[in-house]
Amino acid sequence: MGSATIFVWLQLPNVSKSYRTALTITGIVTLIATYHYIRIFNSWVEAFEVLSKDGGDYTVQLTGAPFNDGYRYVDWLLTAPLLLIELILVMKLPQQETVSLSWKLGLASALMVALGYPGEIQEDLSVRWFSWSLSMIPFCYAVFSRAEGLAGATSKQSSPAAASLASAARYLTVLSWCTYPPMYMVKSVGLAGPRATMYEQVCYSIADVMAKAVFGVLIWAIAAEKSAVEESGKQLPK
Amino acid sequence: MGSATIFVWLQLPNVSKSYRTALTITGIVTLIATYHYIRIFNSWVEAFEVLSKDGGDYTVQLTGAPFNDGYRYVDWLLTAPLLLIELILVMKLPQQETVSLSWKLGLASALMVALGYPGEIQEDLSVRWFSWSLSMIPFCYAVFSRAEGLAGATSKQSSPAAASLASAARYLTVLSWCTYPPMYMVKSVGLAGPRATMYEQVCYSIADVMAKAVFGVLIWAIAAEKSAVEESGKQLPK
Repeated sequence: MGSATIFVWLQLPNVSKSYRTALTITGIVTLIATYHYIRIFNSWVEAFEVLSKDGGDYTVQLTGAPFNDGYRYVDWLLTAPLLLIELILVMKLPQQETVSLSWKLGLASALMVALGYPGEIQEDLSVRWFSWSLSMIPFCYAVFSRAEGLAGATSKQSSPAAASLASAARYLTVLSWCTYPPMYMVKSVGLAGPRATMYEQVCYSIADVMAKAVFGVLIWAIAAEKSAVEESGKQLPK
Repeated sequence: MGSATIFVWLQLPNVSKSYRTALTITGIVTLIATYHYIRIFNSWVEAFEVLSKDGGDYTVQLTGAPFNDGYRYVDWLLTAPLLLIELILVMKLPQQETVSLSWKLGLASALMVALGYPGEIQEDLSVRWFSWSLSMIPFCYAVFSRAEGLAGATSKQSSPAAASLASAARYLTVLSWCTYPPMYMVKSVGLAGPRATMYEQVCYSIADVMAKAVFGVLIWAIAAEKSAVEESGKQLPK
């Protein structure tokens, strides 16, 4: 995550001015994630004590300090809207459309995270399901409008390479986002205990790297390709 | 490792735009290594307690906290693909070839690390050998395609100095990579205990410095030489 931040920020001077805001936000998203993953790492390490190691098997006991999933939700509350905004910005739509899409999708994705949290910290399965269902309303709205709205924008990109990168970013964002609701449900279908918790954390982490760092590098690739096309267009007399 | 990062990033404005992505990635590789070596250092220090020192002999006991080799593998999982990509980028091949080589070699090297890890954390020698053998398949593929494919690219470099640097980078990368499989085998041939573990760690560390920091400085030298040649080419009327 931190490497993605440094990578996109060091690329700032290499893209046209009009894509620098998108890249700045891309780096902020992965920076916020870096911070929260350090918090998550420390919280995880403090929650368990490794008693012994026998070959590949560890004997671990709870220390009593609870592992805090709240860091993940604060991270998502901040990064989910920003992720949508970086994608909208790199598409370079007309200004009015950029502002209205950013507000609508930004608020929907923040609401999605806020509605999901009360269920995540519950053992009560009915509350988990209720919270999940409420959260799915803004989730579906955000994912569908992105898939549809950006399909139109993709076809208007300045070069075939930019269009294919934009289409890859669209697929990556829809696919990676769609992995979160089933992961959330793992604990709701009665799977519990340390193994379920571990797999949930591993899967959330992989999905986060895909949705933020890999996605961020794609945003940079789109910005770099469009900058190159626009620059060569300026130099050639038409 | 950290010094290599700072060195190549401070050189960014001194090379042409087309080599900046290669240098950015070069610095990220050594930054990721710096981070993981700090983790490895702390894990090592926590695993052992020095009871006394008598002349050059130390009496050391295990604290119970296991030394975690996982940091090394997470580091390799991220840096092995990036190392191949920085070499491909500095060669400045046609764009399509760059993308396809980066994907193929990047995935092969990540697979190599992932397949090797289950054996590394095993005491069971048969599992160690099995894991090593599986890991050698993508290893051989990555090393051979680099040695061969880049031989062609080396001969196409823009100046004799650039070609000889590129050739040095090719040898360094093949040689340094080829030291890892025998080191991995040290524990598989029955050598065990603290002394084998210590030599393994020392050798892995030396190989890492060669493969990442020294190699990174070579990548910078290639980028600087090619930038100088290309710039003088622009200024001279042909």
